[in-house]
Amino acid sequence: MTRSDMILSVLVLIAENDAPILEILQGAFEDGGFAVLVASNGEDAMAELEAKRETVRALVTDIDLGSKATGFDVARHARELNPELPVVYVTGADGHDWPSLGVPNSVLITKPFAPSQVITAVSQLLNAGNTPGA
Amino acid sequence: MTRSDMILSVLVLIAENDAPILEILQGAFEDGGFAVLVASNGEDAMAELEAKRETVRALVTDIDLGSKATGFDVARHARELNPELPVVYVTGADGHDWPSLGVPNSVLITKPFAPSQVITAVSQLLNAGNTPGA
Amino acid sequence: MTRSDMILSVLVLIAENDAPILEILQGAFEDGGFAVLVASNGEDAMAELEAKRETVRALVTDIDLGSKATGFDVARHARELNPELPVVYVTGADGHDWPSLGVPNSVLITKPFAPSQVITAVSQLLNAGNTPGA
Amino acid sequence: MTRSDMILSVLVLIAENDAPILEILQGAFEDGGFAVLVASNGEDAMAELEAKRETVRALVTDIDLGSKATGFDVARHARELNPELPVVYVTGADGHDWPSLGVPNSVLITKPFAPSQVITAVSQLLNAGNTPGA
Amino acid sequence: MTRSDMILSVLVLIAENDAPILEILQGAFEDGGFAVLVASNGEDAMAELEAKRETVRALVTDIDLGSKATGFDVARHARELNPELPVVYVTGADGHDWPSLGVPNSVLITKPFAPSQVITAVSQLLNAGNTPGA
Amino acid sequence: MTRSDMILSVLVLIAENDAPILEILQGAFEDGGFAVLVASNGEDAMAELEAKRETVRALVTDIDLGSKATGFDVARHARELNPELPVVYVTGADGHDWPSLGVPNSVLITKPFAPSQVITAVSQLLNAGNTPGA
Repeated sequence: MTRSDMILSVLVLIAENDAPILEILQGAFEDGGFAVLVASNGEDAMAELEAKRETVRALVTDIDLGSKATGFDVARHARELNPELPVVYVTGADGHDWPSLGVPNSVLITKPFAPSQVITAVSQLLNAGNTPGA
Repeated sequence: MTRSDMILSVLVLIAENDAPILEILQGAFEDGGFAVLVASNGEDAMAELEAKRETVRALVTDIDLGSKATGFDVARHARELNPELPVVYVTGADGHDWPSLGVPNSVLITKPFAPSQVITAVSQLLNAGNTPGA
Repeated sequence: MTRSDMILSVLVLIAENDAPILEILQGAFEDGGFAVLVASNGEDAMAELEAKRETVRALVTDIDLGSKATGFDVARHARELNPELPVVYVTGADGHDWPSLGVPNSVLITKPFAPSQVITAVSQLLNAGNTPGA
Repeated sequence: MTRSDMILSVLVLIAENDAPILEILQGAFEDGGFAVLVASNGEDAMAELEAKRETVRALVTDIDLGSKATGFDVARHARELNPELPVVYVTGADGHDWPSLGVPNSVLITKPFAPSQVITAVSQLLNAGNTPGA
Repeated sequence: MTRSDMILSVLVLIAENDAPILEILQGAFEDGGFAVLVASNGEDAMAELEAKRETVRALVTDIDLGSKATGFDVARHARELNPELPVVYVTGADGHDWPSLGVPNSVLITKPFAPSQVITAVSQLLNAGNTPGA
Repeated sequence: MTRSDMILSVLVLIAENDAPILEILQGAFEDGGFAVLVASNGEDAMAELEAKRETVRALVTDIDLGSKATGFDVARHARELNPELPVVYVTGADGHDWPSLGVPNSVLITKPFAPSQVITAVSQLLNAGNTPGA
C-alpha cells in the first residue's frame, strides 16, 4: 500500500435503501476523497459496523431503511461500538423523531439535500473528533 | 402577577434522587433567577413533564435516578412532549452510555461539577432555542 | 421526476452583477449538487424570491449589486419571506457595513474567496436549519 | 482608581422601558460584576451610546422601547459606532422580526427569561470578541 | 466527606500576581460553586499543577505573572500534564501574543472584564470536555 | 488580470514533506478553487511565509516536516506575522503534542484523512475570520 492510499482510507458507511440516492451519496463521498462501504438495510448496516468496527470512521444513515432496524437503531448500535463515531441522519420525512430518538452530536439532514451538505457535515464531525481537549 | 414575576417564571425541572445534590442545584437555579420544579425519581419526573408540558422550559436530570425509569427515559419522553426542550444530564458515573442513549443537542456534565456549569449549560441551550433561523 | 432528481433540488439563489464571478459561483454550486437560480441585480433577486418563495432554500448575494436595491435589501426581504433562510454575503469591499446592516445568522465572505468557502458556508447554514431543537 | 475598580469597569448599556424588568436586569448584571448604564427609551439609549462610545462594552435592549426608536434602531446605531459591540435583544413578543431586522452575531432572548440567560449571553459575546483570530 | 461536598470539589487554579484581582476572581469562583487554589507567580503555579495534577480541573492565568515563567509557560506545562485541561488567560495588555503563544481551545479575556465572563468561559470549557464524542 | 482570476487568488501554503500526500492536498485545494503554494520542509515554509506575508491566507502544515523546524514552529511564526491566519495541522501520528504546542483556533486532523476534511477546515476558519464582530 502506498502512502497516498493511506490518506484515502477514511471509511464511511452509508446505509440507504433507496438505490439512486445511495449512488449519488457514494459518488459524492468518493469524489471528496473518502472510501465508502454501503448497506441497503438496517441489519446489513449493523453487521458491517460489527465486522469493520476498527475501520469505519463515520456513519451516514437514512432513518427509514425499509427494514425492521431503523437508522435510529443503526446509529445507537454504532455508538455502542464506538462512542465517538460521527453520525449523520438523512431523511425524506420531516425528522420529527430525531430530537427524541437521535444520538448526541449527530446531524439531521432532510431531503431534498445537496451532496455537499452531507460531505460538509461528516467532515466537520470528523475534524471535531480529531481535536483532543476540544 | 406582577411583570417582575413574569421575568422569573422560567421553569426548570430538576430530576435528582440524591437530596443534598438536589438542594444545591435548586438553590443555584433559584439564585440564577429560575423557577424550579423537582422530582426525586424517574416516574415522578415524567408525570411532572406531562402535567406541566406547557410551562417546563428545561430539564436537568441525573442519569441514575434510583428508579426503573432512568434519566435517559425521562429525557426521551420530555423530547416527545417538546422536541426543542433543553436537556442537561448530570452523572456521578462516567457517562459512557450518553453517546448512544442521550438525545441530540444535550449536554453531559459529570460529577464533581460546580453549580455554575449547570446554570451555564441551561442558559446556553435556552438562548440557542430562542434564536429563529439559528 | 425520479428520486435522484429530488435529491438534487436544493435551490440556491445567487445574486451577483459581476458576470465572471456569477459564472464561477454557479459552476461551483452545481458541482456541489445544488440547483442554481441567478439574478444580476437587486430588483430581479427580490422578484425571484417572491416568485419562488416555496422553493428557494438559500441566498448568496453580493452586497453591491449595481442596482438601487443592495444585497442588504435583498437579504432583509428574503428573511421577511422566510425567517430561517440561510444568507451568505460576498463582497469585494471590506464589508464594514455588515455588522450594522446584515441579518442575524448570516456569513460574510470577502473577496478574494475560493468557491469552496461559499459552498461550505451554505452547507453549514442549511444543516443547522435542519436541526430541530438545535 | 484602584486596580480592583478597573476589573469591575465593564460597562453594559441596558435599554428597557419596563421599570421592574430593568431593575431585575440591572441587579443581575451588577451581581455578575458588571457596571451598568440604563436608558428607558430608544432616543436616550442612542444618546448614551454616542456619549460613551469609548466605554460601553455591550448592549442589552428590549425591542419595543415604547418610543419612536426601537431596539432594532438602537442596535443598528450601536454597531455603526462600534462594529464589534455585543448585542442582546430581549422581547416580550415572539421576536418574529429579529431574523430580518436584527444585527449579525446578536442573541435574541424571549420573555419569560431568567437573568442568568442574559448574563451568559453577554459574557459569551464579550469573550468571543476578546479572541483575535477567532 | 458528604455527597454535597463532592459536588463542590471542582478545583480551579488561579495564577495571578495582582492581589486585588486575585481576590475578586477567587470570590467569584467560590460564589459559583468552585473550589479555588491560588498561585501568585508562574513557578508556584507550575508546582501546584504538578502536585495536584489529579485534581486540578481548570486553569485561569494572567499572562504577565511578574515572574520568569509567564502564563503562556504555565498553560503549556498544564497541558503537558493534562491535554484536556480548560485554560483561560486574562490580561491587562492587549493579548497580541496569544494567537502565537496560547494553547488550542483556550479563551483570552482582556481587562477590564467582569468576573462573570471568566466563570462562563471556565464553565463552557468544562462542559465541552465532559462531552464524549463532541 | 481578469476579475475571475481575482476570485481564485486565495493563497494557501501547504507545508508537507511527504510528496504523495502533498500532491493529493494540492490537487484537492486547486479543485476547491484555491491557489496553492508548497513547501517541503519547515525552513522553506517559514521563508515563504515571510516572502508572501501579504498574500498567504491560510496555512496547512504537517507536524513532522523531516526538518529541524516542525509544523508547530511554522505555525507559531505564521501567527507572529499574521495573528488571524487560519492554521490546520495534519499528522500521521496521534497529535498528542497539539494541546500544548499548537496555536489557538487551529484544527488538528490526523491521518488517515480525506481531502474534503482539510478543505472544510480551511474554509470554515477563513469564513470565521471574515466576520467582524464574530
